[in-house]
Formats: sequence, structure tokens, C-alpha cells
Amino acid sequence: MTKPLEGVYVALTTPFAGDRIAPDKLRENVGRLNSTAVAGFLVLGSTGESVSLTDAESLALVEAVLDAAAPDKKVLVGTAREWTKGTIDFTAGLPARGVAAVLVRPPSYFRAKMTREALRAHYLAVADASPLPVVIYNMPALTGLSLEPGLVVDLAGHPNIIGLKESSGSIGYLEEVVRRVPGDFHYFVGSGHVVFPGLEMGASGAILAVANAAPELAAEIFRQYKTGHKDRARELQLDLVPLNKALTETYGIAGLKHAQDLRGFWGGPPRPPLLPVDDAASAEIAAILRRLGLLTS
Amino acid sequence: MTKPLEGVYVALTTPFAGDRIAPDKLRENVGRLNSTAVAGFLVLGSTGESVSLTDAESLALVEAVLDAAAPDKKVLVGTAREWTKGTIDFTAGLPARGVAAVLVRPPSYFRAKMTREALRAHYLAVADASPLPVVIYNMPALTGLSLEPGLVVDLAGHPNIIGLKESSGSIGYLEEVVRRVPGDFHYFVGSGHVVFPGLEMGASGAILAVANAAPELAAEIFRQYKTGHKDRARELQLDLVPLNKALTETYGIAGLKHAQDLRGFWGGPPRPPLLPVDDAASAEIAAILRRLGLLTS
Amino acid sequence: MTKPLEGVYVALTTPFAGDRIAPDKLRENVGRLNSTAVAGFLVLGSTGESVSLTDAESLALVEAVLDAAAPDKKVLVGTAREWTKGTIDFTAGLPARGVAAVLVRPPSYFRAKMTREALRAHYLAVADASPLPVVIYNMPALTGLSLEPGLVVDLAGHPNIIGLKESSGSIGYLEEVVRRVPGDFHYFVGSGHVVFPGLEMGASGAILAVANAAPELAAEIFRQYKTGHKDRARELQLDLVPLNKALTETYGIAGLKHAQDLRGFWGGPPRPPLLPVDDAASAEIAAILRRLGLLTS
Amino acid sequence: MTKPLEGVYVALTTPFAGDRIAPDKLRENVGRLNSTAVAGFLVLGSTGESVSLTDAESLALVEAVLDAAAPDKKVLVGTAREWTKGTIDFTAGLPARGVAAVLVRPPSYFRAKMTREALRAHYLAVADASPLPVVIYNMPALTGLSLEPGLVVDLAGHPNIIGLKESSGSIGYLEEVVRRVPGDFHYFVGSGHVVFPGLEMGASGAILAVANAAPELAAEIFRQYKTGHKDRARELQLDLVPLNKALTETYGIAGLKHAQDLRGFWGGPPRPPLLPVDDAASAEIAAILRRLGLLTS
Repeated sequence: MTKPLEGVYVALTTPFAGDRIAPDKLRENVGRLNSTAVAGFLVLGSTGESVSLTDAESLALVEAVLDAAAPDKKVLVGTAREWTKGTIDFTAGLPARGVAAVLVRPPSYFRAKMTREALRAHYLAVADASPLPVVIYNMPALTGLSLEPGLVVDLAGHPNIIGLKESSGSIGYLEEVVRRVPGDFHYFVGSGHVVFPGLEMGASGAILAVANAAPELAAEIFRQYKTGHKDRARELQLDLVPLNKALTETYGIAGLKHAQDLRGFWGGPPRPPLLPVDDAASAEIAAILRRLGLLTS
Repeated sequence: MTKPLEGVYVALTTPFAGDRIAPDKLRENVGRLNSTAVAGFLVLGSTGESVSLTDAESLALVEAVLDAAAPDKKVLVGTAREWTKGTIDFTAGLPARGVAAVLVRPPSYFRAKMTREALRAHYLAVADASPLPVVIYNMPALTGLSLEPGLVVDLAGHPNIIGLKESSGSIGYLEEVVRRVPGDFHYFVGSGHVVFPGLEMGASGAILAVANAAPELAAEIFRQYKTGHKDRARELQLDLVPLNKALTETYGIAGLKHAQDLRGFWGGPPRPPLLPVDDAASAEIAAILRRLGLLTS
Repeated sequence: MTKPLEGVYVALTTPFAGDRIAPDKLRENVGRLNSTAVAGFLVLGSTGESVSLTDAESLALVEAVLDAAAPDKKVLVGTAREWTKGTIDFTAGLPARGVAAVLVRPPSYFRAKMTREALRAHYLAVADASPLPVVIYNMPALTGLSLEPGLVVDLAGHPNIIGLKESSGSIGYLEEVVRRVPGDFHYFVGSGHVVFPGLEMGASGAILAVANAAPELAAEIFRQYKTGHKDRARELQLDLVPLNKALTETYGIAGLKHAQDLRGFWGGPPRPPLLPVDDAASAEIAAILRRLGLLTS
Repeated sequence: MTKPLEGVYVALTTPFAGDRIAPDKLRENVGRLNSTAVAGFLVLGSTGESVSLTDAESLALVEAVLDAAAPDKKVLVGTAREWTKGTIDFTAGLPARGVAAVLVRPPSYFRAKMTREALRAHYLAVADASPLPVVIYNMPALTGLSLEPGLVVDLAGHPNIIGLKESSGSIGYLEEVVRRVPGDFHYFVGSGHVVFPGLEMGASGAILAVANAAPELAAEIFRQYKTGHKDRARELQLDLVPLNKALTETYGIAGLKHAQDLRGFWGGPPRPPLLPVDDAASAEIAAILRRLGLLTS
């Protein structure tokens, strides 16, 4: 079954120029990414350092992406705040055009009180109020809490909740969800380690940080899988693993942006308190890109 | 040695009226608290649900407290954002009157990247830029990261970093810090379980959620300690333990606000996604207050 | 490439009769399992409550399995102790016949001191001394520590270290290991959630608790995969998920043994401090088995 | 109220000679410790690497301590195994003389199943069967689980459960327990950071790893406290902090044994998989001992 939002998305980084955001550079990045086979873009995700942006900056970045994205590319926007009303209000304030869905990570500062009941009420309130379809976001490494698969299944019954981004990388999680949700529910893996195994077990796509630096490779896994070339998809998946590990777990956003710089995108330093990579990290990232043929110099 | 900010502070809750903040009710709460022996107030702390407020709401609450606080009460303000510049900008935007110090919890969303080096750079940048003295805030239960005692000692050398609020409740942490910081550095315990033992080992005071509901008791521990009545201070400390546990760990902010309601303050429900307490919790909280003589009905 | 130990293994439970082990019942279980397509048995694994057995009991159980296992079934034995010499000595004391390999989980009581260097030295010493091939065991949920994929790759260079059992269920972990180890290195998944995806990405088999209660189903996933029926393997994998979750994560060994009882194996209660399942768990387990057609009554 | 077992105990390390235990050296250590003001000894605690000993070795070490301990020193023995019957059997096999109480840490390998109900049943069974009084042991850093204060209070009602060793170092934990247990219940702190604050809040003593290397200092805190010299006790407590941190958290048992060597006790290397300290650690430990006047060379 083909789902409207299936495919591989780039969880866009946010370029900065000194103390300020650089929407023009984001536009350029998106312009270049338009020519790849990615399905679209996520603006204001974790990778976009969205927790380190003002509301005004956030909206400017959304505008930039909506302007720059090619017509065939879908745009997702991260709109979570720590409180229900804040999430609803920011979602309501998005431009009234071009946003395919919003991605909502759970509130997590008071994680010990984020019971299933509290999370359920939060997501239902957001979904009821949102003029845009909602994608739930499970991101235990950053939020310190994990949405139970059973809660996701429960929420998938809401007509305005159309999918899940699951970033723990657990295929077991996927298996606990995928048979128990409506057929048109989107399951996006959020880890570059499990694009192919995720698709193989029923995912509809992926939303990936690593796709900022290796969009061709990420999108090609999906294409090979969809065209029945599973052995090739598996090979490409295994190729992607060292790069994905370096640009997420090991060096994080700073490493990812450095890889973008090496590949001719606008990366630049992360916003403090995140620190840029050091020389050893830089060399390792370059070496991995070179081995993949993604860096010719 | 008497330090300018020593004493017990109330980490104020934020009253809401439906979807909106209720600064008038906060004013009333502060008005009543003025007549107790607390040293002052913290606005926009974790207990104030500060992560669930817009900037405009935040500033309105600061204004309310500055207006309502008696002249002998000091006012501290929580100003942390997830990014360095955001913290600096919000701090710079505070009213130019009456704020004794700002309290800054560490950025924590990217906790795996919050190395000692990153945290050090963050706090130094904030302290350099802040027109107000800075108090560091260690709050592992909510942030998911703990500032090393050695980092606190290091930061205490900055002339504009004047203290620490430590909310893990570890006396061992205090002991690792207290002898290695300048004599005028303030160490505030942030857990109602360790007011007396903290003072006994060198703390200068406490910043407490439970003080919203039991300001007399919290302040009396400090007074008895300071006037040499340590046995009495110890007794009162042990009295406080069950209430503190119920209103922080067990029932959290919802429980604390309910206790405020029972005692005639404005408590009200927390802002969603936090849920209000249920009947069983309500009964248990009332019973504890009654045992302490803090509820006569 | 066919590897000598590939296939699905049963991580055998240990039957008890009152206070004592019941090797005769274990023999009966193995006898029945001989007629299934499983590749063999693991005695003294975590599922066998090996941490709750004396050395004498442990050896009696090994003897029982060696006696009862059909000639075409391979026998693996868990031999880990918390210290290096203890592990070496227990391994050396195994019967000199019929054991295909030993499985060694890492020492974990002093987990904060189990640095890569300490773990490396431990495994090399065990592998040097062991007369039997060694399989490393990664089991973060029980040991509270995770062996880095890079350490596994390093250890895989030792001629007497022939494989890994990986029980976190992470396919990403598998991907980080599988291309960097010698071609004859065995990678066993240790979670029933990832048999098919594990095989698809390069695993050589699985060692499974759930196979005590559903040996046919577990072995059939492997057979369908090996005979090129991947779609069928995937279906069976998804079928297995609810049962595996109930008998491992949700109800643990007590639930697994209860499922064995329901299916006519010897399960019985776990050894205290583990508690038997209650009626609600029993009903849920029966319902899951029934849905799978594994319980006809 | 004076309790029979109050005071400071040494949680003895276990000397090794190559691959074997060295009970003679343990005897010498105890002989020297007899002349200090410690109340007694714990054999087979975590610090004694008890998880890395056979039963026969364990009993030989108990015999050595019972032989060597002066008549006025009490002897406690750690007897926990991962299963209830194992704990009962080992406890029953202790020498029928001279053991004041047994210390029992909770089973923890199956920590997710160690519910309050399971732990309660375990401790009650052990206490019912034990010919010796039982001291419960809370040691979250090593076991990965924490006994709820409410469970301890509950178990304290058993006539054969006479105390708790609490090694998290939390004074809040102590406060939640101390008023709700019988007056003759012993509360031993298990962290050298909180001897004085623990006593101040109601502890009856301490069982300490650091006392192997600094028995005089540890015992003196207790003596000063008991003779009403609280200010002196506090000073000594703060003196102890850097040494305690180095010999427990930072360098662990290897560091502690090295400090014993420096001070003329038999320390020696830990049993693998624990690794000995390196030169940098050695130098730091020596420097701390020197600052305390515990090392004259």
C-alpha cells in the first residue's frame, strides 16, 4: 500500500551566521536537496536545534523551507513545546500553505509525571486542535522517556494522528506497532541504522539527520527497496552505518554540520551550548565520507 | 559568615485561570508569604512550570512578584533557556529593579553532548553577559544530567557566579563543593529533605517547592538552626519529610498546588500536560497536613 | 555461508521440584524438543536462572541435557561467573564431551569499573584458557552494561572466540558488528523480536527464551528464511511478537514457564526470589497462545 | 539510645596472593585494625569482592576474621546469593560462633522483576530461616535497584531483621526510615561521605570501605560525635570526603587496596576482572593521604 507521505525525509539542520539564523543558507541547502530523490523535509526537528530557537526564528525557517522546497517535496514541521497549549498555539501559527504534517515530540521536562494518561491527554488535545495532520515522535535518547507501543496504537485511532517517527531504532518497537494500527498510518524510522530493516518490516519511510550529508545514499536505500532490489538495499544500508553512527551518536549535530560543510552544503557550527567538532573528529568524518565516495578531494 | 542571600526561599508555583496565567493570584500568594519568615522568592523555577510558559507570560509573572514582594524579601528569577544566547537574552530583558540574582539550570535536551567543556563555556558566557548575579542550578531529576562538583567549584571562581542551587538532595555533593568555593559563595539546597543537614554541613539556605504550602515550617527550620537550637531544627526537619516527599517526588507540582489550595493559598490545577491529583492523593495530602497541624478543618 | 552452529536454539528453562532442581523433567523437555527443528540448546543461560543455581546443580543440569539431546542437536553452556578465574574454572570443569561452545556474559556487579580494557582482558583470559569455543554475550537489560560493538569486533579476532549472542534486540548493533568480523563468526540474536530482521541483516541464528514455549514457530522462521520464503518468515516473525513480549519483557521467566506448562512441557514455578505469575497473567498468556494456535483447549 | 552494634565498621577488602585468597594477610590486617577504635568488621561485603569468591574461599575468609578479631570487635558477614535458598543455605553454613549479624543485599540480576512483593518475600524467608540477625543492604550503585524506604520500614517489623546498611549516601532516605522503625533498629550508613550527617540525623553507625585505609579517621568522626564534639566531627567528616571519593567512586576497590598498601596494610591488586590502578591514580591517592597526614613518607 502506497501512503501519501512515504519516503525518506531530511531532518534539516539549521544554518547560523554568528549569533543569528541564516535562512538564506537553509534555502540554498533545500535548493540542492530538491534535486535528490528525498521525499521531503522536516524543519524544526531535533536536528534543527529547534529547542535553541525563538518562535520568530522558527517561523522564519519554516517560511524559508516552504519557499525553497520543490513542489514535489513534502514539508513536515516540528511544533512541540513543553506544554499542551504552547504546542497547539505554535501549530496554529504555522503558514496556511504547504505543510504536510506536524511532528510532535512528547513533553519531557517533568518526565516522571508523563504517565500514559498524561501523554494520551496531551496528544489528543493537540490532535483535536491542530489544523494539520499530526505525527507522534518517540525520541528516548533526547527526551528521556519512551512512548509505549500500546499508547501509539491507541493514539493511532485518532483521525488526525497519521503517523509516528520512532528514533530509538528498535525494530521490535516497530513490530509491536505496525500490525495494530490502521493501514494508512505512517511509520517513519528516525535512525539511519534501520532504514532497510524498517522498510522490510513495514515502515513507510524514514526521517533522517544523516540525510543532510548523504541524501543520495539515504534515498537510494528506499528506491532500491521499493523497486524490489532488496539485496542492494541491504548493502547500501550497511554502507550507511558508519557514517550514520559518526554523524549522530558519536559527534552529533556538530559532526553532521561538519559533514555538510565537507560536501558543499551550508553546515557551519551548531548554536552554543553545542560545541563544534575538533580536528580528530573532522578527520574521521572526512575519512568515512571518502570511503563512501561522497568526498572526492 | 552571614551571606547576603542566605535563608529559605519559596520556589513559587504559577497560578492559572483556565488557559491563562493568573498574576493577580500570584500577587496574593506572595502577599501572604510576605508575613512569614522566608527570605524571599524564586519566580520561574521548575516548580513554577517555567518550561510551560511563553516569554510574555514569564515576564508578567516576574513583574507580579516584584510588585508584591515586601521590601525585605529577595527575588530570584529562573532564566534558563536551552541555548546560550536565549538564556542571555531573556536575562537581559528582566526588569531593571529588584531582582537579586538569576537561577540558571543547564541546557539538557542534548544531554549526551553536554560535556564539562560545553557546560563550562555556557555558564561562563551567561555569567559574562548577565547584568545580574548568577546562581547555577543542579537538577538531575528533571534535566537528566548532573553538574560535576568539580565544575561547580571551577565556575565559582567567576565573579558573577555567586551560588548554586543543588536539588539532588545529596549531602555528599555539598561536602565536595563547600570547602573549595570562595567564602561568599551561596549553596542553596533544593530539596526539603535536607534543609537542616545541609545547613549543618555549610549550606547558606534553601530554595524549596514545599515552602509554597508550608512556609512557616520551612523557615522555622532555618531560624532554629541559626539561633543555635539544632535539636529543634532536626525535629522540624523530620516533621517536614513526609510532606516534602508527597508534594515533590510522589505527587509533584499537582500535589503541591493542591496543598496550597487546602491551606488557603491559590494553587489550582497545573498546566497540561501535567494532570491534577486524584481523590486518593488529595486525601493523603490532607492527612499529612493535618498531622503537621497545618490544616485545622 | 553456512556456519557450523547456525540455527535457532532454545535457551532452556530449569525445572524445579520444590526446593530442588528437577533434571529428570529437563530431560523430558529436551526429549520433546528433539523432535522440533531447533538447532540445539543453551543450558545455564539467564533464562535457566543460572544465577540461582549452585555449581553442583549447574553441572547436573548440563549432564541432563547432554544425555537427553539428540545427536543432531548442539549444546551450548553458560559458564560465566563474576570473576575471571571463576569463569575459567567452571568452564574447565564441564564434561569432556558434547558441548559445542560456552556462552559467557560479562561480569557486571562492578559495572562502573568494567571498562573496555577490563572487559577485553577478561574475555581474552577466558578464551585463552577455555578448552571450548567461546561465545560472548551482550545482555544489557540484565547486566546493566553494554559491550561496545567495537570491543566485540576486536575480540572476534581471537581464534577461540567464535560468536556473539546479542540480547538487546538492536539491529543497529548487529550492523555495526557483522561486516567487521571474520566470515565464520556467529552472530546470534537473543531476542525473539528480531529473528527474521536479524537473519536478513546477517545473523547466523538465534538463542531464544520463547523457544521453550513455541519451538516450532521459532524454528520455522529460520527455516522459511533459509529456504528463501522471506515473506512467510516475516509473517511468522510478526506472529511471534506478542508471545515473545509476554514471555520475556512483561512476565519474564515466570510467564515463560507458565506457557510451557500450558503447552505440556515441564515449566513450573521459578525459583524464589522470582514469583510465579498471577491469574491475570495466566489468562493473557493462554489467550496469546490460543491466537497462535499453540493451545487447543 | 545505645544500640548493641553501633559504631564504625570496616568493610574489609580481601587480600589475594596470585590466583588465591590470602587469609593470613587478612588476619594481619584485622590484627592491626584491632588496635583502632572501630566497632568491628564486615567480611564478604561488596568491598571484599564477595561476588568474586567461591563458597569455600568465602568461609575461609570468615574463619580468618573470626580468629583474628579482638573480643571487643563485632563481626558481620555478607551472605547474599542471587536466590533465596542460596542465601539461606550459605547463612546456615556459617561458623556457629562470633558472628554478630549477617548483611544481605537484594538479588538483582532479574532487577525488573524484583518488585516490592518479591523483595519482601525474599527478605522474610531469609530472616525466618537465619539463625543470625539480619541487616538489609541497600546498594543501588552496584545492584541497579533501590529498596523503597517503605519496604525497609515494613521489614523492620520482623524480629530477626535488626538493621539496614544504606549505601546510596542519601540523608533523605535515612530521614524517611529513621522515625518509622523500632527504636532498636540499626541504621548504618554505607558511604564515607555521610558519617557525621548520618549520625546527626539518627544513624547508629557506618560500615565503610574507606575505613580499610583510614580507620582512625573514620572511627574518630564517630567518637567526636558521640562525645558531643560535633564541630570537630564535622571537620573530620569534611577531611574524609576527598579520600572517600577517590577510594570508592573514582578508583574503587583497586584504589582502596592501593591506599592500604601505602599505609602498610595488605592491599594488593583486586581479583580480575577488576584492574589495578595506574600510576596517575597512585600518585593522586598518595597525595590525598599525605594531605591528611596519613602518609609520612
